[in-house]
Amino acid sequence: MEKKWVYFFDQVKQAKDYVGGKWDDVRALLGGKGANLAEMDRIGVPVPPGFTITTEACNKFIELGEIFPESMWEQTLQGLKKIEFLTGKTFGGSENPLLVSCRSGAKFSMPGMMDTVLNIGLNDLTAKALIKLTDDPRFVYDSYRRLIQMFGVVVMEVDDELFENVITKVRAKVGVETDSEISAEIWEVVIDRFKQIFKSETKLKFPDDPNIQLMLATEAVFKSWNGKRAIDYRNAANIPHDLGTAVNVVTMVFGNMGDTSATGVAMTRNGSTGENQIEGDYLVNAQGEDVVAGIRMTNDISLMQKDSPKAYEEFATIARLLENHYHEMQDLEFTVENGKVWMLQTRDGKRTAQAAVRIAVEMANEGLITKEEAVLRVEPDQIDFFLHPQFKLEATKEAKKSGTFFGKGLNVSPGAASGVIALTADLAKEWSEAEKAVIMVRPETRPDDVHGMLAANGILTSRGGRTSHAALVARQFGKPAVVGLSKMVIQMNKRRIVIGDLIINEGEKISIDGTTGEVYVGEIETTIPDIKDEWLMTILSWADEFRHLGVWANADYPADAKRARSYGAEGIGLCRTEHMFLNPERLPFVQRMIMADLPSDKREAINALLPFQREDFEGIFREMDGLPVIIRLIDPPLHEFLPDRELLVNEMADLKIRLSHADTLDKINRLLQDFNNKEKILKRVEKLHEVNPMLGFRGVRLGISIPELTAMQVRAIFEAACEVSKNGIKVLPKIMIPLTTHCNELKVQRELLEKEAKKVMKEKNLEIDYKFGTMIELPRAALTADQIAQYASFFSFGTNDLTQTTFGVSRDDAEASFLIEYISNKILPANPFATIDKDGVGQLIQMAVAKGRSVKTDLECGICGEHGGDPESIFICQDLGLNYVSCSPFRVPVARLAAAHAVLMKDISE
Amino acid sequence: MEKKWVYFFDQVKQAKDYVGGKWDDVRALLGGKGANLAEMDRIGVPVPPGFTITTEACNKFIELGEIFPESMWEQTLQGLKKIEFLTGKTFGGSENPLLVSCRSGAKFSMPGMMDTVLNIGLNDLTAKALIKLTDDPRFVYDSYRRLIQMFGVVVMEVDDELFENVITKVRAKVGVETDSEISAEIWEVVIDRFKQIFKSETKLKFPDDPNIQLMLATEAVFKSWNGKRAIDYRNAANIPHDLGTAVNVVTMVFGNMGDTSATGVAMTRNGSTGENQIEGDYLVNAQGEDVVAGIRMTNDISLMQKDSPKAYEEFATIARLLENHYHEMQDLEFTVENGKVWMLQTRDGKRTAQAAVRIAVEMANEGLITKEEAVLRVEPDQIDFFLHPQFKLEATKEAKKSGTFFGKGLNVSPGAASGVIALTADLAKEWSEAEKAVIMVRPETRPDDVHGMLAANGILTSRGGRTSHAALVARQFGKPAVVGLSKMVIQMNKRRIVIGDLIINEGEKISIDGTTGEVYVGEIETTIPDIKDEWLMTILSWADEFRHLGVWANADYPADAKRARSYGAEGIGLCRTEHMFLNPERLPFVQRMIMADLPSDKREAINALLPFQREDFEGIFREMDGLPVIIRLIDPPLHEFLPDRELLVNEMADLKIRLSHADTLDKINRLLQDFNNKEKILKRVEKLHEVNPMLGFRGVRLGISIPELTAMQVRAIFEAACEVSKNGIKVLPKIMIPLTTHCNELKVQRELLEKEAKKVMKEKNLEIDYKFGTMIELPRAALTADQIAQYASFFSFGTNDLTQTTFGVSRDDAEASFLIEYISNKILPANPFATIDKDGVGQLIQMAVAKGRSVKTDLECGICGEHGGDPESIFICQDLGLNYVSCSPFRVPVARLAAAHAVLMKDISE
Repeated sequence: MEKKWVYFFDQVKQAKDYVGGKWDDVRALLGGKGANLAEMDRIGVPVPPGFTITTEACNKFIELGEIFPESMWEQTLQGLKKIEFLTGKTFGGSENPLLVSCRSGAKFSMPGMMDTVLNIGLNDLTAKALIKLTDDPRFVYDSYRRLIQMFGVVVMEVDDELFENVITKVRAKVGVETDSEISAEIWEVVIDRFKQIFKSETKLKFPDDPNIQLMLATEAVFKSWNGKRAIDYRNAANIPHDLGTAVNVVTMVFGNMGDTSATGVAMTRNGSTGENQIEGDYLVNAQGEDVVAGIRMTNDISLMQKDSPKAYEEFATIARLLENHYHEMQDLEFTVENGKVWMLQTRDGKRTAQAAVRIAVEMANEGLITKEEAVLRVEPDQIDFFLHPQFKLEATKEAKKSGTFFGKGLNVSPGAASGVIALTADLAKEWSEAEKAVIMVRPETRPDDVHGMLAANGILTSRGGRTSHAALVARQFGKPAVVGLSKMVIQMNKRRIVIGDLIINEGEKISIDGTTGEVYVGEIETTIPDIKDEWLMTILSWADEFRHLGVWANADYPADAKRARSYGAEGIGLCRTEHMFLNPERLPFVQRMIMADLPSDKREAINALLPFQREDFEGIFREMDGLPVIIRLIDPPLHEFLPDRELLVNEMADLKIRLSHADTLDKINRLLQDFNNKEKILKRVEKLHEVNPMLGFRGVRLGISIPELTAMQVRAIFEAACEVSKNGIKVLPKIMIPLTTHCNELKVQRELLEKEAKKVMKEKNLEIDYKFGTMIELPRAALTADQIAQYASFFSFGTNDLTQTTFGVSRDDAEASFLIEYISNKILPANPFATIDKDGVGQLIQMAVAKGRSVKTDLECGICGEHGGDPESIFICQDLGLNYVSCSPFRVPVARLAAAHAVLMKDISE
Repeated sequence: MEKKWVYFFDQVKQAKDYVGGKWDDVRALLGGKGANLAEMDRIGVPVPPGFTITTEACNKFIELGEIFPESMWEQTLQGLKKIEFLTGKTFGGSENPLLVSCRSGAKFSMPGMMDTVLNIGLNDLTAKALIKLTDDPRFVYDSYRRLIQMFGVVVMEVDDELFENVITKVRAKVGVETDSEISAEIWEVVIDRFKQIFKSETKLKFPDDPNIQLMLATEAVFKSWNGKRAIDYRNAANIPHDLGTAVNVVTMVFGNMGDTSATGVAMTRNGSTGENQIEGDYLVNAQGEDVVAGIRMTNDISLMQKDSPKAYEEFATIARLLENHYHEMQDLEFTVENGKVWMLQTRDGKRTAQAAVRIAVEMANEGLITKEEAVLRVEPDQIDFFLHPQFKLEATKEAKKSGTFFGKGLNVSPGAASGVIALTADLAKEWSEAEKAVIMVRPETRPDDVHGMLAANGILTSRGGRTSHAALVARQFGKPAVVGLSKMVIQMNKRRIVIGDLIINEGEKISIDGTTGEVYVGEIETTIPDIKDEWLMTILSWADEFRHLGVWANADYPADAKRARSYGAEGIGLCRTEHMFLNPERLPFVQRMIMADLPSDKREAINALLPFQREDFEGIFREMDGLPVIIRLIDPPLHEFLPDRELLVNEMADLKIRLSHADTLDKINRLLQDFNNKEKILKRVEKLHEVNPMLGFRGVRLGISIPELTAMQVRAIFEAACEVSKNGIKVLPKIMIPLTTHCNELKVQRELLEKEAKKVMKEKNLEIDYKFGTMIELPRAALTADQIAQYASFFSFGTNDLTQTTFGVSRDDAEASFLIEYISNKILPANPFATIDKDGVGQLIQMAVAKGRSVKTDLECGICGEHGGDPESIFICQDLGLNYVSCSPFRVPVARLAAAHAVLMKDISE
């Protein structure tokens, strides 16, 4: 039997049988548009007669070197015969001629990326017949000139400007503003001119033969699959290149046949707000392209209800029918020809995050979809919309047109912000206190920039990657941030930033979008959505019903913990104690500890920190009443608490100059003392210097070397726990050791720390229910997790560090250099610092969980790296059998939804 | 039945039955000394009657809180009765009194660490009886004073000096030089004085009762197991603390009964040279302690042959009997009492490396042991002795006494060297060319110090660890090196080095021992053994018969390859191409490549390197005719080829000053150009700067970013291969990609490189049999080895980097800081950079081998990290099923022997 290349719109069942029954495969065969036209036909929606040439035909065409596969053209001609039979019209006929459109349509929508030709079948002969039939020469000549123009541009690659110039000149000559005001006579002249242009540009006569028109148009659509525009789009949208496009040959219906004709596009619900109300545009007496192209002012579809109530009612009924059929909001194209409604396209409608949430909830409430489906209808990343200010879309479009687009960096912390540029943390703080909105701009940030970051409305850096200091802190505090905008030059001497011709001085305004990574000169208008949105709350509560993974938050301060809890966090998965040390009140004690020569000095400095730490923990315990709080003992290398080396050297050089100008003994003495102090600090900084600090003296290595420090931290935790539990608050502290490599590290620290804990509890005469566990963030810890589990009652996977060591890649260095190249060249399928690398890092986690639980069946396993807030990583965590994910407070709602998806999508695939 | 705590010397069979038949367990029960005394008794060697109180008794004694276990003392008294029966003497008897010794004796020899008391049984009464019996009051009183002295010191902890002072004074008073010249009368006075000292120090009377003497002596020996000396020794020698010591109660025989009596120690073969000739010392008319203590000048045992031929003959026969019985060279203690030879101890003799090799070979040739046993008799590390000069032992002892011991660093490259200190590489080279022996001393070394290191006789640094640049290069070239001597301060301004009071100026002599890590002021005499030693060659050839692992070498230059082959290497496992780039001829081209702004400049610089590379490879291929050569493509970060940042900054500051003093336009121009050049380089250096270079832009990441460079390297390899194979040399090149993380890296590089390889082979019209493979040196590569094996035909485990990333530990930083603390505190059982961490890194290797071979069954797996030359790591490699180990040429003989041990010891344990 010969291969079937052509499916008539009433053959959807055959197509389904051919592909094996799945709707998705029907869409792959017939394209989205073709499949839906056939489906509409099947359920009785009025669709102009037509057929689809399959994507298989397209692929074969490409494979054969741009030749139609055997018998495809014969099947196409048979399809035309069937249309002629159904419509009673004849293709190329001199009495009642049939016109058709030839439209592309791939499996996935690629709007505007491929070609379409309308009005095929018109020539001088059929045009005359049509005029005779319709008595509307303006309509016919308008349609004819459109065919010549589209055919010329699409099939023969003639420059469209040549045609448009003719129309522009004509409009000026006859003094009209829109094409529809141009008379039939004038169009006749235009048609002649168009034919001349066609001839002179292509060296060919415009083909009169309708069959040739259709044949060449079909070829052109097939070829457009591999056009540059289409390939670029597929690369950007991650659409495979081997799908091919289908071609839909459809009987032309005409919205431009006078005042009882119209054409329009509509969505069954509001795509911006989600309101259950048809939304769209229509135009009386026009063809579809007029609506889309925006040449004529369109009307709101609500007007149609007044102007043509009958047609509107018919259309609204169809719209409802289609929504019910597809259980999804539909994006429709229709034409009214002499009062009769024809549907030309239906597809799932695009919508904003806000609309997606509302539509999903309302459809579930209407019984149109299940709660599970509703939850799956909202993409986790869409939740971000509700948590951060956004730039208005029109405003950014406008900015790009007007040349104030500044550049695009890494989008590391979502949300939009505008403000004046401050190039130092101190200035950011000063201006912020003077009630200015500030964007802090730095080459990269360090712990001593944090006060500026907290004061600023947003952060922009020229260096650093997705997990740079700037990115981590910004996400932690929900500050919009763009990092690694490497084209940006920060000219500190001139106090300004520069990209090419664009220069922004300190104090001038800039706008950054942490959701997209885009940066603009000047201020862009923002909108602020709301987390309290009732539909969002509903979707999240449904998500909570379905998910298995717990969702915890990383929070260092009581305020963070409070926010996290209000966003639905069920515990604190990571409380980093070292951030507390960077507070200006406390840093001097930390530095004194590091600088201490005598054990007694060291102890004294450590003890001075105790009340501060206790106070912090009390606050967090109060906020998390009844929920677990994992406190990680000190982790970063000590040099992070000391000033930067270069800074010290410069300051010392400065002091030397000031010394040479000092004129009183008193001044000299003070300067000298300052100099000697700094020199002492410099020596310590140099001693602490490491070639590879990431692999250096930090984490538990510090704890073992300075046991007094970790003992103090444990004392602070238990004193705080005892204090608040006296006030009836339920405290569930969990002590976590960072950077464990060998079980002995844990053994030694656990002995020391449990002793201190018991001592405090005895002093306070209280029992606190606590747990002792470890980070798993080095490959060796994962590989020997069975040994480690003997001394730990929980594991928390630090996937940032685990990714660095498993890959042998330093995140900051790499994201600024080769890693980006690797991802764009597809050497790596994704950025492993954004999404867990399943094959490598995921495998290690899997081993660690299995080995750990082989020793302790109830071992609690979670993740507290940056990946904890990434939906794709959350799916992997679900597969890995973790108990919870912990992420920054602002990602908690996202994670709740993603965790539900992880369960529901697995249910579907099983 | 009551527990048996005491075994008489004729009860070795009972002891064997009790422990289950294994000799090793008999030694554990009776101690080495006791077990051998009983065994000698069993085979008819004359041993004074006696018995052993077991180590179990000691352990029980400790467990009970220093109380003899039930019935132990009764069994001891029964043992005494048996001795009385056999000797016809009576313990404490007034006619023929029995004297015994009470000696410690643990499973493993701990020389001098535990206690012994001789002459137990003497008191005023038995002394008189003994005088009557022997008619030798000098002997008896001498023995008696010894008992009081030893009992006082060992059992009652009286300061020995109090006793010795008495004897010194007496000697001065009577005007004699040695104790044996002191008369009986004088000894009587001394005995009184000793008893007074005993009384005043212990508040107790010296116990007359022989039973009490024995009881307290036994207790003292038990207690000495947990004395500080013993514990320290066991910690150092890795002997478990729960073994306990046995106590041997042995009838005293007397070498101090006149001229037909003597005492001595001897080895059955020469312990220094291995010659098959009894070697030892003896003294006429003396007790054993006199020989050991060195108070009297001893005689060579060959004199005994002349002086007492009969006794000597008897002794020599026993010695031969014992060697034949134990199949091992024996270390003997004996006493001749009135012409009768008694054996007091036999044990395996200690020997030098040289002796160990010769004895093993000769014993195998004599049929005393098998070849397998001979191979196992030599420790792999002993081979090092034959490869490097050594300091003479006496000379270092002398130096330590005279206060010229300078300090101890890490022993990273074996061998001893003396020379004048040079504090820069240039000076080292200059002096070396002036025929001076030079030790180069630096804080740490960099690639641009290599010319100085090559010129120097040894290298000493104050920083860096076991795999620092200095250590790697030194081992590579067999230069003795000590690194990380952190106490040493290098005062560049004063051109000298300092530790405390010891100061050595540049140009003065220093001696370093890379085998021990010791450093001395001034010159120490050395000896140079020889690898061509016939017995060594024999042992190694036997080892080759037994081993399964291949032994390859890491060699970058033809000269290295030649040496490696002469030492028995069967291939080159790692040829690092980047070392070739550091040659002063080539470095400018490498720098030009790095600095190039234009692709054409870059290509030109790369092409200029091609002839150099080709020449290197030709040389190596010639040396390795018929054997495989693995060439690793460029690996280190690019900044290693550029000058150090601080150096540049200083040089630029210097140029600025010179510019301000320049007085001609020409000078100014030249200086300015130089300054601009350096500024350009500095910018590049800063751009290449990474926070964690170990995890940075290096390895295959470079190859992917600069494909022209790796293509050039491949071209050089294949042009060289074609060239030499035309001359009839068999070339087996293997191209290796470093630092692979993801299989796609390999895929991309392999495509590129195989294309280039095919191109060259086509140009030369030759087929070269080559292989393409990868380093596995990152956890992710090991975890995804099945994916990687699709593109690799061999794996070479880079255990240095793999250890760093698996542990999350930067080797250089850590070995200078917390890692040493970790090892000394037993948090880590061993330095993972010296011996493969079996649980973590070993597990990864095991996974990688299994996964790799699941895809390619014949996948060749080897190791080329520093661990390849470490015997313990080689055992692990054998277990992991690797095909070969590759190590520095100087470790090849060590590895050959270790690889044989790995097989033979497994055979034994199975």
